[in-house]
Amino acid sequence: MVYDVIVIGKGPAGISGAIYSTRANLKTLVLGKLDSMLLKADKIENYYGFENPIGGRELLETGLKQAERLGAEIVEEEVVNIEKTENFNIITVDGQYEAKTVLLATGAPVVRVPIKNLDKYEGAGVSYCTTCDGFFYRNKKVGVLGYNDFAIHEAADLLNFTQDITLFTNEMELNVSDNAKPVIEKLKVNNKKIKELGKGDILEEIVFDDGTAEDIEGLFIAFGSASSTSFALKMGIVTDGKSIIVNEKMETNIPGLYAAGDCTGVFKQVAVAVGQGAIAAREMAAYIRKK
Amino acid sequence: MVYDVIVIGKGPAGISGAIYSTRANLKTLVLGKLDSMLLKADKIENYYGFENPIGGRELLETGLKQAERLGAEIVEEEVVNIEKTENFNIITVDGQYEAKTVLLATGAPVVRVPIKNLDKYEGAGVSYCTTCDGFFYRNKKVGVLGYNDFAIHEAADLLNFTQDITLFTNEMELNVSDNAKPVIEKLKVNNKKIKELGKGDILEEIVFDDGTAEDIEGLFIAFGSASSTSFALKMGIVTDGKSIIVNEKMETNIPGLYAAGDCTGVFKQVAVAVGQGAIAAREMAAYIRKK
Repeated sequence: MVYDVIVIGKGPAGISGAIYSTRANLKTLVLGKLDSMLLKADKIENYYGFENPIGGRELLETGLKQAERLGAEIVEEEVVNIEKTENFNIITVDGQYEAKTVLLATGAPVVRVPIKNLDKYEGAGVSYCTTCDGFFYRNKKVGVLGYNDFAIHEAADLLNFTQDITLFTNEMELNVSDNAKPVIEKLKVNNKKIKELGKGDILEEIVFDDGTAEDIEGLFIAFGSASSTSFALKMGIVTDGKSIIVNEKMETNIPGLYAAGDCTGVFKQVAVAVGQGAIAAREMAAYIRKK
Repeated sequence: MVYDVIVIGKGPAGISGAIYSTRANLKTLVLGKLDSMLLKADKIENYYGFENPIGGRELLETGLKQAERLGAEIVEEEVVNIEKTENFNIITVDGQYEAKTVLLATGAPVVRVPIKNLDKYEGAGVSYCTTCDGFFYRNKKVGVLGYNDFAIHEAADLLNFTQDITLFTNEMELNVSDNAKPVIEKLKVNNKKIKELGKGDILEEIVFDDGTAEDIEGLFIAFGSASSTSFALKMGIVTDGKSIIVNEKMETNIPGLYAAGDCTGVFKQVAVAVGQGAIAAREMAAYIRKK
């Protein structure tokens, strides 16, 4: 089955988009884990329509119920990749889905892993995109920094280029689905806390808090969920730093692919996100009609 | 006292703006009558955060309480004019207020009065702006189409140019404050239902449903509340047809004057309006800080 709209992200931007696309009679699927920044918000006072403060989690859960009541399908699956075909293939940990249009609403880019020299080696051994850079590490010794299904997906991608892959979890507990197991068997896993990246102008080693070090030729960052930045890198979406560039219709540079909310770098507020989601849905409906 | 922010309009855009400006510690006053389009909305299903539909009036009233709880001052006074001085003077029926910045959130332009040939005579006897065109009707016989304080304000303006003014209410009941009485005494009032405007290329007469007609040289339209269009005409705000042009910061072409919501011609949805209000407030805070 081909969905009209797949929304990636369950925060206000994505769910507002799903509400509008469902109401526009578009077959709508929402994917993603509930990991909005709002979960950390004890009380929200400035979102119009609530006389008294509302908790972030409560608002998120109400939004999900609202979208479901209106007919949106919501699935708790982590998206690890998006491929542009005639439509879009959305690859999750457990399967894949097809849609005519996609709304990226993945929230603000994940906070950078605080590892010394990570910035310094970006483009000099540190990469955020296996699809973009995997080829350059053929038969080399590489690492993947991460601990969940997204990291495993990236490692699986790298297995096309090299068999010498270490998963560096930086002390995070491994948190992966059953599907990940065959991949993990092909990886080494290192759970030590990383102190810094090191040596000259090009990345050559990872130094751990316990004083030991390990030689490495490349390190791919996949720490936490796949962010809009990861998708942008893989698909060639135009960004401005860490934010996806959209026009007033919430269109990215890829036809059929829209973005809304914090991942577009706007004022990071529920009020702004819901408006962007609504506009994106209206434009997705227009796009599908035109096609 | 000089307010930091005066918001004109009590719908979602204005109140969201007031919530954010109050939270930004700006002394905020909201003016206007509660006449949002939402009053006609039986139930709203697509505004994020409400599992079950909410009535338009309920949402509006909750928003007002929320803004008041956070410290915004809300006054039920109709705004009839805005003057740019060093700050802004906001003229209401009963008085005037001063503010460093103004947020126009007056909603969608009032639906055009359905009078035959009104369009035809725009600029040829029909005007929407006494400030702009009053001078051209010195000592002429003019009419004001309207029935409330805004119409009286426009008529008072015209008294500077001519004493022969008729208020045409088009069957609406006169609904004015006590302050209007001295002005009304200087006007003729005609309550007949208007059928059409007529004669040649230039307006010369008003024809009524009862078959009678009255000669007239100019007709000023002030039917209903002062809309964003009226303010735009008086202040030289750049518009695109009936919509106020704003940039991504919600700035109009007049420094310190912002607009949000339906009056900017965007997707007319609560979700979009609240986002624009929030952004406007952030930018108003930045504007005041810079000054």
